[in-house]
Amino acid sequence: MNKLSSKIELLKFNTPLYKMNYSIDDINIFIKRDDLMDFGIGGNKVRKLEYILHEPLKSGVEKLITFGSIHSNHVRITASIANYFDLDCDIIILTDKNEKEINIEGNRFLLDFYNANVFYSKLDEAKEYIDNHLEKKNKGNYFFIPGGAHSIYGALGYVEAMHELIEQTNDNFDAIFLPTGTGTTQAGLIFGKKLLNLNLDIIGISVARKKERCKRIIKETLTEMNKEFNEKFQYDNKDIIVEDKYLDAYGEINNSIIDIIKSIERSDGILLDPIYNSKAFLGMKKILEKNKDKYKNILYLNTGGLPNIFTEDFIEGIKKYEYINY
Amino acid sequence: MNKLSSKIELLKFNTPLYKMNYSIDDINIFIKRDDLMDFGIGGNKVRKLEYILHEPLKSGVEKLITFGSIHSNHVRITASIANYFDLDCDIIILTDKNEKEINIEGNRFLLDFYNANVFYSKLDEAKEYIDNHLEKKNKGNYFFIPGGAHSIYGALGYVEAMHELIEQTNDNFDAIFLPTGTGTTQAGLIFGKKLLNLNLDIIGISVARKKERCKRIIKETLTEMNKEFNEKFQYDNKDIIVEDKYLDAYGEINNSIIDIIKSIERSDGILLDPIYNSKAFLGMKKILEKNKDKYKNILYLNTGGLPNIFTEDFIEGIKKYEYINY
Repeated sequence: MNKLSSKIELLKFNTPLYKMNYSIDDINIFIKRDDLMDFGIGGNKVRKLEYILHEPLKSGVEKLITFGSIHSNHVRITASIANYFDLDCDIIILTDKNEKEINIEGNRFLLDFYNANVFYSKLDEAKEYIDNHLEKKNKGNYFFIPGGAHSIYGALGYVEAMHELIEQTNDNFDAIFLPTGTGTTQAGLIFGKKLLNLNLDIIGISVARKKERCKRIIKETLTEMNKEFNEKFQYDNKDIIVEDKYLDAYGEINNSIIDIIKSIERSDGILLDPIYNSKAFLGMKKILEKNKDKYKNILYLNTGGLPNIFTEDFIEGIKKYEYINY
Repeated sequence: MNKLSSKIELLKFNTPLYKMNYSIDDINIFIKRDDLMDFGIGGNKVRKLEYILHEPLKSGVEKLITFGSIHSNHVRITASIANYFDLDCDIIILTDKNEKEINIEGNRFLLDFYNANVFYSKLDEAKEYIDNHLEKKNKGNYFFIPGGAHSIYGALGYVEAMHELIEQTNDNFDAIFLPTGTGTTQAGLIFGKKLLNLNLDIIGISVARKKERCKRIIKETLTEMNKEFNEKFQYDNKDIIVEDKYLDAYGEINNSIIDIIKSIERSDGILLDPIYNSKAFLGMKKILEKNKDKYKNILYLNTGGLPNIFTEDFIEGIKKYEYINY
């Protein structure tokens, strides 16, 4: 695992880890604040890009190209880091909206702020659009980053994060909960757990996809990591846990989402984002309520996404929520 | 100074302090990240309200009332903390705009999110409006917080911050730079410097008022602190330094502001806010460029204000900036 050192240094401080006021019965809930970072207000993608971009930057890449949804933290943070390294940046937004319907706000606004070149593709034409973009429009020295920074090198960021959080506290956690999108963050934590020989559950709450698909991708990532980093870890069903029971449509802002955001603001003064961590925190809450005797100390990993608060969808969601409930 | 312990605990972690990549010639610039906090995305007002609200909360206050501009971090954070303690909250926004012209965005949106009751007063009717509001509209058990959380108890938050930052690092600073509004933060740092017997300049960059007025208020605050906290510190001109040479209209977002925000994002991945810290950082830069031999290690205190990024004014500013320069 000597490749852990092959990264660029973007983060200047360990993100805070502490016990929340919020608890469920006797279960202590700790939180790791990967939402408090830099590079476009940060989030988990910063840790991933520290590893993913090491080789491309060494070999003199001139442009980064990636894609994601209009809510995507990954595209925002990629644009910020491209700007930081003075690289050109193409962002392909996958959306079925017309360009004119898209508000310049939140994450989308920051793409403009970072001078990224923004393109739009319909969802069902994405593969063709991206292939065409890479083949025809970019003859230069570019590096393509998979959506969500999904790659085994990206996962290394969370192998390192697992080391960081274990060193940061004397508390032993029975479980770590996190939002799971492409599964890279979760794969990194699981690999880190194996490396450190820890006994804890790592439970991803899917924010977009069915759990079977998430688990399959995480398993593939872990298998590939074993191969690339010369490890022989075994992974069984207890290692790869993903829940999707609490899955609404990706990006949907409904009353349960707003409820949990308001609730955590009231208990701890922490603003969860409306797309990723609100959903995952809510999923965790429901799981813990059904497993009150199973866990004593758990850790929630806040992966960031705050710019999504400052969007018309969320502002309208709050208006409607108040109308119904007050 | 035993009153330092008389506070409510809102902050769960020391805010990060580290050396920036950005430097001016041989001057090392460190940064203290009071923009990375909770309670409505935090900022310096959280430290102040920890002290200001201790007594009112002990005595069972039911409502907080305060005022500020539409950009005000103080009103946002007050609304967040009222929500946290389940208190009612009246916010009086001082503005010459008509209510209908005011966008629900950034700090202003968060007031709605926290269920604050928002009122508007014209600037030149502010005193009368506030007096009337306090006398006629609120017969209950309320606590009125001065604008900007300006009070000697508020200043204690930065006496404590001075302790925190000195304990956090082995580096010796020749100067601390910060944005100065009402002067409370600066007064707290100066009082802390006297308590700890430190030899460093504390330089406020005014974001709104002429320096003579800032200095007078800071002097008054310090005199009052001596009296209240039984100290006999002497303050001369070298202790109270405020610069206003770089003063544009409060809240104005112009090309210099955007230049420095873009510049610090490129050097360090840190997003400065467009109202307070961009202006102060720019002022510091100009002062350091003229005093290259005077300082070796300086600390910049980032006091927060990020929601002001997500506003039409800033988004329009970025558009215009690009139009002119690209």
